[in-house]
Amino acid sequence: MIVWMRRDHTEDQLAEVLRRIEEGGCRADVSKGTERTVVGLIGDTKRVDENRFLELPWVERAVRISRPYKLVSREYHPRTRRIEIGSCVLGDGSVTIMAGPCSVEGIEQLLPLAEATRAAGGQILRGGAYKPRTSPYSFQGLGREGLRCLAEARERTGMPIVTEATGAHHHLGPDGAREEETVLDQVIAQTDILQIGARNMKAYGFLEEVALRTRERELPILLKRGEAATLEEFLLAAEYLVHNGNPNVILCLRGHRGGESGRFLRYTPDLGAIPVLKTESNLPVVFDPSHATGDRRYVRSVALAAVAAGADGLLIETHLDPERAWTDGQECVTPDTLREIVEEARKIETIRSPELLGPTSG
Amino acid sequence: MIVWMRRDHTEDQLAEVLRRIEEGGCRADVSKGTERTVVGLIGDTKRVDENRFLELPWVERAVRISRPYKLVSREYHPRTRRIEIGSCVLGDGSVTIMAGPCSVEGIEQLLPLAEATRAAGGQILRGGAYKPRTSPYSFQGLGREGLRCLAEARERTGMPIVTEATGAHHHLGPDGAREEETVLDQVIAQTDILQIGARNMKAYGFLEEVALRTRERELPILLKRGEAATLEEFLLAAEYLVHNGNPNVILCLRGHRGGESGRFLRYTPDLGAIPVLKTESNLPVVFDPSHATGDRRYVRSVALAAVAAGADGLLIETHLDPERAWTDGQECVTPDTLREIVEEARKIETIRSPELLGPTSG
Amino acid sequence: MIVWMRRDHTEDQLAEVLRRIEEGGCRADVSKGTERTVVGLIGDTKRVDENRFLELPWVERAVRISRPYKLVSREYHPRTRRIEIGSCVLGDGSVTIMAGPCSVEGIEQLLPLAEATRAAGGQILRGGAYKPRTSPYSFQGLGREGLRCLAEARERTGMPIVTEATGAHHHLGPDGAREEETVLDQVIAQTDILQIGARNMKAYGFLEEVALRTRERELPILLKRGEAATLEEFLLAAEYLVHNGNPNVILCLRGHRGGESGRFLRYTPDLGAIPVLKTESNLPVVFDPSHATGDRRYVRSVALAAVAAGADGLLIETHLDPERAWTDGQECVTPDTLREIVEEARKIETIRSPELLGPTSG
Amino acid sequence: MIVWMRRDHTEDQLAEVLRRIEEGGCRADVSKGTERTVVGLIGDTKRVDENRFLELPWVERAVRISRPYKLVSREYHPRTRRIEIGSCVLGDGSVTIMAGPCSVEGIEQLLPLAEATRAAGGQILRGGAYKPRTSPYSFQGLGREGLRCLAEARERTGMPIVTEATGAHHHLGPDGAREEETVLDQVIAQTDILQIGARNMKAYGFLEEVALRTRERELPILLKRGEAATLEEFLLAAEYLVHNGNPNVILCLRGHRGGESGRFLRYTPDLGAIPVLKTESNLPVVFDPSHATGDRRYVRSVALAAVAAGADGLLIETHLDPERAWTDGQECVTPDTLREIVEEARKIETIRSPELLGPTSG
Repeated sequence: MIVWMRRDHTEDQLAEVLRRIEEGGCRADVSKGTERTVVGLIGDTKRVDENRFLELPWVERAVRISRPYKLVSREYHPRTRRIEIGSCVLGDGSVTIMAGPCSVEGIEQLLPLAEATRAAGGQILRGGAYKPRTSPYSFQGLGREGLRCLAEARERTGMPIVTEATGAHHHLGPDGAREEETVLDQVIAQTDILQIGARNMKAYGFLEEVALRTRERELPILLKRGEAATLEEFLLAAEYLVHNGNPNVILCLRGHRGGESGRFLRYTPDLGAIPVLKTESNLPVVFDPSHATGDRRYVRSVALAAVAAGADGLLIETHLDPERAWTDGQECVTPDTLREIVEEARKIETIRSPELLGPTSG
Repeated sequence: MIVWMRRDHTEDQLAEVLRRIEEGGCRADVSKGTERTVVGLIGDTKRVDENRFLELPWVERAVRISRPYKLVSREYHPRTRRIEIGSCVLGDGSVTIMAGPCSVEGIEQLLPLAEATRAAGGQILRGGAYKPRTSPYSFQGLGREGLRCLAEARERTGMPIVTEATGAHHHLGPDGAREEETVLDQVIAQTDILQIGARNMKAYGFLEEVALRTRERELPILLKRGEAATLEEFLLAAEYLVHNGNPNVILCLRGHRGGESGRFLRYTPDLGAIPVLKTESNLPVVFDPSHATGDRRYVRSVALAAVAAGADGLLIETHLDPERAWTDGQECVTPDTLREIVEEARKIETIRSPELLGPTSG
Repeated sequence: MIVWMRRDHTEDQLAEVLRRIEEGGCRADVSKGTERTVVGLIGDTKRVDENRFLELPWVERAVRISRPYKLVSREYHPRTRRIEIGSCVLGDGSVTIMAGPCSVEGIEQLLPLAEATRAAGGQILRGGAYKPRTSPYSFQGLGREGLRCLAEARERTGMPIVTEATGAHHHLGPDGAREEETVLDQVIAQTDILQIGARNMKAYGFLEEVALRTRERELPILLKRGEAATLEEFLLAAEYLVHNGNPNVILCLRGHRGGESGRFLRYTPDLGAIPVLKTESNLPVVFDPSHATGDRRYVRSVALAAVAAGADGLLIETHLDPERAWTDGQECVTPDTLREIVEEARKIETIRSPELLGPTSG
Repeated sequence: MIVWMRRDHTEDQLAEVLRRIEEGGCRADVSKGTERTVVGLIGDTKRVDENRFLELPWVERAVRISRPYKLVSREYHPRTRRIEIGSCVLGDGSVTIMAGPCSVEGIEQLLPLAEATRAAGGQILRGGAYKPRTSPYSFQGLGREGLRCLAEARERTGMPIVTEATGAHHHLGPDGAREEETVLDQVIAQTDILQIGARNMKAYGFLEEVALRTRERELPILLKRGEAATLEEFLLAAEYLVHNGNPNVILCLRGHRGGESGRFLRYTPDLGAIPVLKTESNLPVVFDPSHATGDRRYVRSVALAAVAAGADGLLIETHLDPERAWTDGQECVTPDTLREIVEEARKIETIRSPELLGPTSG
């Protein structure tokens, strides 16, 4: 259930609402916006009568939320959440370009690539330091050293960085010894946006830990959809983060299992999920055409489709020499192709109608 | 295997090529374009040596086609096939708008709707007279009467029509008696584009029959992707039609099973298949956002994504009063919404880069 | 809605029930069993009040059926339908073994194979004369000649035959000419069980035609589940057959798309569907482990699982020389392996508890 | 690559093999069985020539393993791994029954249920103390208190216990405070089999941590298949555990996404995976019919199918009052039903042929 306070309510009036929520055995989530204070009830609201709130003159509306997810729903908060990272804003109707290599391969690879990516229109630098790999015999990322490279690239280019935390465990370094700090600790210390990968979307304990550890700073979290997760499960995973204190969640679609996976496309690009998430949720939505297709020939077409469908951003893998990329080279584009994609995306950005995007906070 | 003749070849020289193909136990498919004559070998080409052709001075190239589908592949014919229907052209880089009701409900419903659909930018009128329904207890279409309504609407509006042939069987009329002519006979006699529905995409005998019955007129066929068909199977179904003599095949994507089907979207919009089909095949590709989403709130977003991704056309369900539509009302848009979609689609059409579309014949 | 008559009702009393059904705008389906007469209402029963029947003293129960499928549901008819084919009975709690080649390759192949299959425990001979193939360039079956071989094998071995009708179209013979009779006509004339393949499960017009053409003889129909059909869709396809007059429908599971399809298994064996169909429906259920796995190494294990789960029969592909089979050799077992499967299946048959099977008519 | 030593080899001869492996840039995994010593090469074996080993007279065979998974493959180790837990043995051809509640609800629930489960034939007690839940608002398990209950039930009944470790994070207790020890620490300290849930199957960092923390004791790990994981991914996840030092891995199938998920079955019972895993891998395979079906009416049928297909064990949810279970009540069976399942399973166990099970170590 959600309670909307009248504009001119006092603190005492709010306190009375909170008292009645507690009385009903629930817990309150207070969200004070520039226009409205909204209070969400968390817990079993079945036994709570909305008339207990409606009878107060300073309450405008009290509505049961029909969705299993609440804090991330548009029912709860009709405007798209605005998330600022450096000079970029996600959720204001614009398209943010995140780009960079699948894996950080060393500073000699990363620096020129970051420069070229920025020159091509990239705004945020992506790069994997810790890599979740299907086989234990595959390259598992440069780890701590990769994070150092990303930090240096940020310093040189001014681009904020987004990189994945693969867990709350201790990484095995190249020498076979466990790193002293956990992966989560290290990534939190370095990144501007913390990425939770598709494979961890349902590692709910990890989601909880991430939220608790980042809520003070409200460090933005890029949450990727699990490869077979339903949209309801995806939104509930986001709810885990927001409910545990960090509201700055960016939803990232990256293709899912089922359908055409396999012969031509690595996953099925889940572009149809964009308008659903924009309708159901108040969080910004980013699309990753590189993983979704697994084939650089299709990245451009799918990227533009995502923008036309209403995405708030793109996450694109780039490499100066895709054929020689250590991981996922077949889906990396060159900075030249990135520039073309950005140019067309900017044109579509100006055309698309505001209704596609939901009410924005811009 | 495919043999490209030199530009200045003579008929005798072509005859020699055909003789050698026959000698190898294969059958020839000759395609004479404005620039080139191309000869495809059908049958078991394993025992045929390409040097038997390359040694002829009037043969430019002889290449084994690696795909299981041949006549519909870009390897075989690099330009997109151009299909003219009235004043519309599919495959020249433009976007063709096909729209109309899911089911024809009578002339009183159809005429004003067709007028409004045309006024909103619709170019070809869609409408179901024979409806494949999951339940035997559901409305099965007006049948013969529905075809008559479509013909009248065409006469009044000048719009060509597209309607489905559900089989080579005899339809049961409302009185329980079987119609004398088969459904296929009736639809061939009336329609400008013959639609083969998703449920029949693998009814290979029916595909054969359709091709044999329409090849003389080269009546355009709109072939919908089966709901769980792979893209290879889809292209092979198209190959059945072309191989049996009718080259005017339009591929239509309409969402597939798997992924998010169910809670929010009726099917998974298979937008990622657009660039794959444009790369692999020489046939025009149309997208149906109505069936793909099953929800009118998402039709606009998905339609624009399809155009941005490179679709040659859209197939959209419209109704003057969607809430009262006899079938699929929840996915119909009004002509007003159609107008907005067409306006935005036209803007994106002018932006999209030619490379997305493959070499066109325009 | 379904109306159960009391045991001792008269014909006049039944007539009164039928009159009231007609009055309500519905049509009646009367099923007279040894114990009970049951009347099903077809049509829009929303406006029919069950009290109109309950007030008659000769009516025992009148129940709204909550399922979209009615005639095939256990709600409607609690006993499993008993279908006799020669000396075999499907639906009496026993396991019927149908086996034979994927494709009929000629009488020299078929006769010794049929003998060996029968000796190994096969009861009904399967064999494809008309083959639905994904590629137009693949072997399409021996057609009319294949049917002749099957008829001869039946005569020699005494085994009834099951073979597929791929449509109501005219087959293209090896000489490229269309056969005069339709495939459906020819198969009806020859077979003991008419198979409708997975690819045609949603060719509803064809289902209707099959039912209308076979209802007089009540020729048994083996209906295969479409590769991506839900169980509800499968049961509704069966309903099309029963509703159009042929109640002798055998449901056949053969694996479906999704899940592990691909790397190890051609389809996902849908064994979990067995108890669902046995619970929901009154039709016998047969399992095809050959198509479901696509790998002869797994046929035995999956076949026994099907029997343990409650299947009424198995449909298994056999070949004397699987490596040389014209089609699907990788999933054929030899008659020796068939014998082992039958031996173990017979042991499990005696163990399995009657509750697994639903009330049988035996 | 794998090197088989001759029976009578000396330690020096083995050392020479190891030296040559190191020379090739690989690392060795030595497995000494009662009959044979087998040496696996880990790393990039492409540059290693098998003749370097074959030329040694004390080497019998040197074979490249074609699978991406090595240590868990039958190619590497042809006998099924034997895992002893108390008096139970997994992998010797018998069927082990693991049963108990979905969630531990308190000692008053658990003790009588454990007694009844044991009396019905249960051998190992399952029960969730930490529960991964799709919604943050759902009951998250009794946590530490739940583990205490399980320990007490073990003491009273003598049944070993299996329970899930949901991550390496700190659990939030009912008071909202984080527990001091991580979930992993606590579960390792208490359980006889550590369960890794389907949602964590691809949390590779966590898998690594679990293996490193349990390898000394070789604590058995029950690894559940991810709900959309391919079998190759499943085996590679197991490879993560074995490669990091703990060979005692039990594979557990529990249904997967795709196919019939939804209307009738919560997941698609992946019974066809049993013979594939028994063929490809040397690990014991357990089946969970409760999660796979999500419906207690189908548990029995699917459980027996799993045994007939060759499973080494069953994992079944039981409850004394399923309607009142805190979680997943709809899929729990009573101990009475469990007894019937066990009785039938024992009969099928005696029938099933040894070939289904692969070479066992018994």
